[in-house]
This record gives sequence, structure tokens and C-alpha cells, in this order.
Amino acid sequence: EQNVKNIFVNGTTGEGLSLSIQERKQLAEEWMCQGKDKLDHVIIHVGALSLLESQELARHAAAIGASGIAVIAPSFFKPTKKDELLGFLQKVASEAPTVPFYYYHIPALTGVKIRVEELLDGIREQIPTFQGVKFSDTDLLDLAQCINKNERERFVFLYGVDEQLLSALAIGANGAVGSTYNYLGRKTNLMLQAFAKSDLALAQKYQFLTGEFLSFVIKLGFGVAQTKAVMTLVSGIPMGPPRLPLVSASEEFIAKAKAKLESIVWPDGD
Amino acid sequence: EQNVKNIFVNGTTGEGLSLSIQERKQLAEEWMCQGKDKLDHVIIHVGALSLLESQELARHAAAIGASGIAVIAPSFFKPTKKDELLGFLQKVASEAPTVPFYYYHIPALTGVKIRVEELLDGIREQIPTFQGVKFSDTDLLDLAQCINKNERERFVFLYGVDEQLLSALAIGANGAVGSTYNYLGRKTNLMLQAFAKSDLALAQKYQFLTGEFLSFVIKLGFGVAQTKAVMTLVSGIPMGPPRLPLVSASEEFIAKAKAKLESIVWPDGD
Amino acid sequence: EQNVKNIFVNGTTGEGLSLSIQERKQLAEEWMCQGKDKLDHVIIHVGALSLLESQELARHAAAIGASGIAVIAPSFFKPTKKDELLGFLQKVASEAPTVPFYYYHIPALTGVKIRVEELLDGIREQIPTFQGVKFSDTDLLDLAQCINKNERERFVFLYGVDEQLLSALAIGANGAVGSTYNYLGRKTNLMLQAFAKSDLALAQKYQFLTGEFLSFVIKLGFGVAQTKAVMTLVSGIPMGPPRLPLVSASEEFIAKAKAKLESIVWPDGD
Amino acid sequence: EQNVKNIFVNGTTGEGLSLSIQERKQLAEEWMCQGKDKLDHVIIHVGALSLLESQELARHAAAIGASGIAVIAPSFFKPTKKDELLGFLQKVASEAPTVPFYYYHIPALTGVKIRVEELLDGIREQIPTFQGVKFSDTDLLDLAQCINKNERERFVFLYGVDEQLLSALAIGANGAVGSTYNYLGRKTNLMLQAFAKSDLALAQKYQFLTGEFLSFVIKLGFGVAQTKAVMTLVSGIPMGPPRLPLVSASEEFIAKAKAKLESIVWPDGD
Repeated sequence: EQNVKNIFVNGTTGEGLSLSIQERKQLAEEWMCQGKDKLDHVIIHVGALSLLESQELARHAAAIGASGIAVIAPSFFKPTKKDELLGFLQKVASEAPTVPFYYYHIPALTGVKIRVEELLDGIREQIPTFQGVKFSDTDLLDLAQCINKNERERFVFLYGVDEQLLSALAIGANGAVGSTYNYLGRKTNLMLQAFAKSDLALAQKYQFLTGEFLSFVIKLGFGVAQTKAVMTLVSGIPMGPPRLPLVSASEEFIAKAKAKLESIVWPDGD
Repeated sequence: EQNVKNIFVNGTTGEGLSLSIQERKQLAEEWMCQGKDKLDHVIIHVGALSLLESQELARHAAAIGASGIAVIAPSFFKPTKKDELLGFLQKVASEAPTVPFYYYHIPALTGVKIRVEELLDGIREQIPTFQGVKFSDTDLLDLAQCINKNERERFVFLYGVDEQLLSALAIGANGAVGSTYNYLGRKTNLMLQAFAKSDLALAQKYQFLTGEFLSFVIKLGFGVAQTKAVMTLVSGIPMGPPRLPLVSASEEFIAKAKAKLESIVWPDGD
Repeated sequence: EQNVKNIFVNGTTGEGLSLSIQERKQLAEEWMCQGKDKLDHVIIHVGALSLLESQELARHAAAIGASGIAVIAPSFFKPTKKDELLGFLQKVASEAPTVPFYYYHIPALTGVKIRVEELLDGIREQIPTFQGVKFSDTDLLDLAQCINKNERERFVFLYGVDEQLLSALAIGANGAVGSTYNYLGRKTNLMLQAFAKSDLALAQKYQFLTGEFLSFVIKLGFGVAQTKAVMTLVSGIPMGPPRLPLVSASEEFIAKAKAKLESIVWPDGD
Repeated sequence: EQNVKNIFVNGTTGEGLSLSIQERKQLAEEWMCQGKDKLDHVIIHVGALSLLESQELARHAAAIGASGIAVIAPSFFKPTKKDELLGFLQKVASEAPTVPFYYYHIPALTGVKIRVEELLDGIREQIPTFQGVKFSDTDLLDLAQCINKNERERFVFLYGVDEQLLSALAIGANGAVGSTYNYLGRKTNLMLQAFAKSDLALAQKYQFLTGEFLSFVIKLGFGVAQTKAVMTLVSGIPMGPPRLPLVSASEEFIAKAKAKLESIVWPDGD
């Protein structure tokens, strides 16, 4: 219904790191099964604090035919040098040697601040399956240089800070992966279309309105638990409670988010 | 030569806060005098840790006919609530009651993180001369909401993170104030023209190349002292040494920055 | 040889979070087996990003007769409110309902900054097995208030910032858990004895000298990998390489650390 | 009445950096005049963002016979290397070549994180008048190494994180400078006496109780404005309103702080 054609399984919104290895495998299998004829790509996030577990998940993803795997930087022992991070990623990627590999960059959550531009310099020699980045950071100089310096490599840069997607498109981001698209996917697709037609004024209107909603809920406290409540609200599909350390969004939050969402008048008249 | 038509006096690059009050007045007078027939606008930064000194500078700027005044948030006692910051700004603005007033937002330097969207809500009631923001931050959700919510007010948003100006233009920033334009002003004007003509591909090329230079020098350590060395390099006009706590850029830095700058091939063939 | 009588298994230095669940169980069993007659307490760290896995480890620790279990706050979804963290801890503790429970507080690594004083307020009602805190933070106001407010509860506060242990003892910390004691355990025991005898001047000398070593290696870059190299150096027992994302200490580091350690003249003439 | 024998003029609590140069001189003169026969030392803080203004204040302090001058690191252009900070301090100190010089280290406010241990290495060669540090930081490894390495120099280390003074005394701090002593000076003197007599248990009680008060008000929001309200409360001497960007403490804060302070039962029966 949101016109979403690709799926990122066991990522942040899916609370992948809060699941057991067994649960992650089960979920990956289910998405592969259900998505077979409906989705273009199923990318499975296989990052973990433990390299061994991450490797196990990578082998599993390969075995069930995932279109790609992604790995987030470990958030406890935080790599501070390129070699440490690249070593970790390489050891996971090599367990699924025919599966396209994505690095999932989200320093606000992981605390790992190694610039992606630096990480990508020569990465194909270490990780031949390297395909692209889920780039969830506001450092657009870094993103721009990634794009600028890897033109020949045809890497894919999927932007993940939903509230400023248009700004990332302006410097050449290829697409978006973010939690907002679970409930504002259609509106975002309209923004992408406007941008593709060089109708920047229209694209801005969509960006302003998704930004208005996000700005509103961020003030109320907006994490993965709250995102799930909004997803339930919009889709009618109950997402279930989050797992600790996350706790369910309050009724007050849900009521306010609902009222805000309904108050927005979109350019397409919706 | 850089085709710059407006000037921001005693700001960060000018080390305004490292000068004595007397020196700041003298510099402001000199710019008013020299710029009379050459510049469209002379905006004088009058912020200071001491409200009294800031007020004195505001009165002086008004007296010498400045086109506008700007105030940075105090960086020692850092306001954490809107009222504290707005109170401070209002007390300065009211000393120059006919001079357009700008807020200079640069949280990375001041540590003051109050969102501009919140600050601007109802600001004209407190500061009738309020005119706009020098917005030097990477939070483009905040910038977008400022633009979105103040359409009727016709505020001006001048973007100050030079390496991602194109991304700010994409969501409606009105222009730019930044140190880079002292030596890459012409190239940036070509980017602005490309953007105005909806030639995003060309605009990106300029942004990528300024970004490439900045990314390179940032790795070497790039502050105001280094910026001045590059300005001297490009213009041939000696900027003189910075004032402590800044220290002059090293010869090694200057040589490397020069080589990098000369190695860049711009789309206009330069 | 270091006169250490208690052991903390699968913690930070042991890279517990980099191991698979299976490896963690195996290590815990081995320590229980080897330590049976030699150690007073074997506390097993069972924290994990996934509540399910943490619970599984807690049940296992109980089954093999651990003297205590400890849980670190999850570092990916970082709890920001007491309820979130307490809920997580409670769900783990209740899987080992007869095993003393410790909270492992190390905000510099986890990013979880909830004050321990607040967490402990009424904690026995939620976690009847609650026994104490491994307190690895420099906020000694928090530690002091924990001690002050829980006198009747007889909680145990084990301090984990080795370079300022004496300062924590001065406000009533009960003991220490830290990586330094793997190689400077005897010297630290001499400091504890001096402190117990109110010989503050002597205690200071020991603290100054361990601090001198730590200050020296911190400047070189001192993480868990480097700690292991020093442990190997001092004990002669090879610790093996760390697991990615950690990488082995350089030969240069090892040589410098060795020279520094040997240069120190301790008050006991060693 | 608080048995305070030394005074630190125009520091943080005195809002020195919010005053004009003229006001700072006036205040310094008044303290010199009033304190002549009552105080042992009058140390005047002469730090400023502008080196020129700081130098002017240093000359003035020397002229009026100050017992010492102190300089805080500039908080706008933040020195990140020893040379930058030392250069600044040296240029101020040399304007008052016979006046003992103190560095005022308070990284939480200035953002300047250069370790004091490093700064002090060889400092007498640059600043012959160097006398000591007002050390307002929780990094007690740094403080301990300062004390350890400068034994021969007889530098003075005055600790400024009031809520953990006892922990600093334990590693050899010489005294304290802090805002709390304006209203809890007598209690703190009793703590110092207990510590001097090796009665650590009694000293802890005082530290716990000042900590209990500070912990309570910190939760309510405790800055310089609130400190002044408490000073007025305790002394009966109206401190006047703070200057913007600070705003006066709320009536609610004052009532709660008063109730808390009155509820505390001190070991001396007060």
C-alpha cells in the first residue's frame, strides 16, 4: 500500500539486535518466503556485537537466497580506526561471498564515527561483494565525497535520515531506507517523483510536511517504540509491543501523533 | 574578484570575539567606509559574552549606518532554554531599533543547541527588527522547518556550512555566508547559477569539488588560522597572523593546501 | 600470584560481548570448574543486547552455581529512563531468582547515563536478589549518594575506574573490579592495606604510580587489546589475540609499556 | 560567617565574563578595598575571550595589588593543543610579572579538554609566576598526576567540583574553590578538619550531606542563577538578579531548595 518494493530485514526498526540469533533467522526466512513475488530486493541485516554470530547470520542469509546483506558497526567495542571496522566487515562479508554487501552507517546509535569516505577507499579489494551504504547520518560532506569519489564503482547510497532526504538527493543519493517510509512511503514516493521531474518546489512541500510531522513527534520523544505505534496507527496492522529495553509508546503519544498526522494537508489533496 | 556583494564583519573568520571592543568598532567603521559604493550590505556582528558590550556594539553599528547586525549565542554561560537566549538577543536588538537583526546560529562553536525553529516561533513580537538567521549547522530538519513555518515573514536564511550548501539550497535556503567564499566565491557563484537554472548535475560538480578541497584540509586540521592562510594564498593579500589562542597555519599545511587547490579541475575549465 | 580472590567472567576485558552465547557458557563453566577451591566468588556477566540471550545466560549461570551475575546496560537501544533499564535488568534477574545480582555501570562504553542513585531507589522491590554495582564511572557524586542512601541495604559498590580507586575508597567504595588488577593486583592490594591502616600518604604513592603507568599508556592508545598485551607481559601467560573489532596491540606499544612498567619504583622496593 | 579567608573575584559564580571590562575593574577594586584586613588572599580572575582585554585586566589587577590572578581557557576558539593554550596564558601572565598566576580549568564550561598534567609540564619556564590550578573537573587521574609530578614545584591545587571534594583531598588536593562554600563554607571547613584528623567516617558524613543537597538541586536545574538564590537564602544578603543569558531562579526552586537545606541534619547537630 505504501508502494515499497524493497525491504530491509532485522534492522533498527525491526529491533534486529534485540532478537536472538534463532529469531533473526526465522524472520529472515519468513520475509524471503512472503516477499518472493512481491518485492524486488530483500536485504537482511546480519550485524551483531559478536563476529561469530554475525558470520553465522551471513551464511544463513546466503543460504536462503537474500538479495543482499548489511552490517552495522559494533556499538560496544567501537572501532575508531578504518582497519578495525573494515576487518570486521570483511570477515562477515567473506562468509557470503556471492551476496551483495552493504555497510550500515548510523553513528548516532553506534557511536562509530569513522568517515564513510575513508572506509570506502579501496574497499572492493577487501570486500569484492561491496555494493553500497545505508547512510544514516547528517554529515552530507561525507556522503557527497562518497558519491564523488566512487562514481566508477557504481556503489549505491541509500539515505537514512528521513527528515532531510531531499537534501541528500540534491547531492546524488540513490534512494532511501528509513522507518518513516513504513507509514509515509506513498508521500515520499511522490516527493521522489517531483524531484525526478525537477519540480523542486513540489518536492520541498512534501519534505516540509514529513519534516513537520517528525519535528512534532521528536519533541514528544520519538524512538523505535513510537515509530511502531505510528505504523500500527496508519496501517491498521498491530505491530505488537517492542522488546525491552524499549517500552511501548504511551496512549498520550499515540493520540497526539494521530491528531498531527491527520491535520496535515498534502499537496496531492490527501 | 570573488564577486561577493555582501560582507559579514567581525564574525568567526574575522576573529571578532578575539578583538577588543575598540578594535571591533574601528573595523566596523573601516568596512562601512571602504564598502560604501562597492557592497550591497554590510552586516556587523555585535555578539559578546557580556550583554553590556554587545549592546554598546549594537548602538555603534546603528550609529555608523550598518545594513544589519548579527548576534551569536554566548558560549560561556550557554542558554539552554528559549527564554534565556531570546532575552539576550532582544536586549541587544532593542539598542538598534531600526537596524535589521540576524541571529547567528553555530552550535558546534557555541555549544548552544536551542533549535532555531523554536526560537523563531513568535520572534517578531519580541524583536520587531528580526530579519533572518546565519544558519551554521548540519541539522537540516531544523532549517527546513524554519523556512516552512515562516514563509509569510519573509525571513532570510543564510547557510553557513559551506561544504553542504547545495543541500541547504534544495530545501530553500536563501543564500550563504561562509569563510570558503573568501577564496572560492566565484566557483560558488557558478554553483548558485547552475542551481538557479535547475542544472543540478552541474551544481553537484561544483559542490563535490569544494567538498573535495574542504574534506582534504579538514583532515589536516582546518580552523580559522588555516582559512586565513588559504585566503592569503588565493588573494595575494596578506591576512596577517591570527590572534591567540589561534596560531598560524604551518608551512606544511600551506604547501599541501596550495597543491590540492591547484590540482582541482573545475567545470568551467579553470 | 596477584592475590586476587574473586573473578568477574565474560566482562569487558574478557570480551564477553564479542563471544557467541555458546562460547560464553563454555567459559563460565570452565571458570566455575577451575576456580572451585581457589576463588571466593565467581561473578558471571550475562548482559547482552538481546533480552532473550541475556535471560538464557542468567539461567545457565544459575545452573552451574555462579556466586553472582552481572548485567551491563544494552548499548544499542540505550535506555534513557529508569523504567526502561530497570525493566530489562528485572527480566534477567528473575531468571536466576536465587543468584545475587549486580548492575554493571559503565556509561563511557554503553552510552547509558541513567544515574545509579536513581536506579537504586526502591530496586529491592523489583529485584529481590539485587546485591550491588560494578561502578565504572567518574561521577563520584553519584557513587557517594548510592552509598549514602543505601546504608541499610548493605549493597556492595565495586569501583571500576582503576586510576582513581583511592578517591572512591575515600567516600566508601567497598572494593574494586578492574582490568588493571590482572597485572597490578598485588600493588593495589598494598594500596588497600595502606588505606585500611589510615596511611593515606602511602596509599597515595601506590595510586600515583598506577596512575603514572595508566596515564602513559592511555596516551599511546589503551583499550582491551592493549590491556591483554600487558597481562601477557606481566604474567607470562599468552592471552591470545583479541577478537575483531579489536586488533592486537602493536609491538611498539608493548615495548614502550614494558619499559615504563619496569621503570617504576614501588614503595615496597619492588 | 562561613569562615572563608580567601576570595576568587570575577569567576564563574560572580559572572565575571558577563561583565564589561569596566565593571570587572570596579569589582576588583572594591574587593581589594573591603577585603584588605579581613582576607588572606584576593585572587582576581582576568580571563576573557580577547587576549587584549585579558592583558588589560591583568595589568589592572597587578596595579591594585591582587594576591594572584587566574585565567580560564577561552571558550569560543577552543585551544586543542598545549601550545595554543599555553601561549594565551603566557601572554596574560607576562603583563603581571610579579603576581602569582593560576590556571582555571573547567572543561565542562569551556569545552577545552587539554589535560592539566600536560599543560604543567615545564610551565615555569614559560610562566615564572605560575602558582597553581583551580581544578574544576572530575578527571582525578589528571589531578593526581599533576600532584605527583610537581611535588618539587610546590604548586597549589584548589579543587572546584564541590560535590566530590573529599575524593580530591584523598589524592592530595590542597584546598577548594567553589560556589558551594558561599553557603556551606562552615560545614565544609568541618569536613576539612575531620579529614585533617584522619576521621574519614566523619568527613564522609559531611560530604554525603553536601552531596545530598547538590544532587537534589541539580535535578531541579542548578546553575549560577540558582546558586545565587541559595546564597541569598542562607546569608540574607540579596545577591540581585543574574545578568542575561542567565535568568533568575524560580520561586518554586527557591522554596524546594530551602526546604531541602533545612531538612538536613548535620553531624555537628546543626
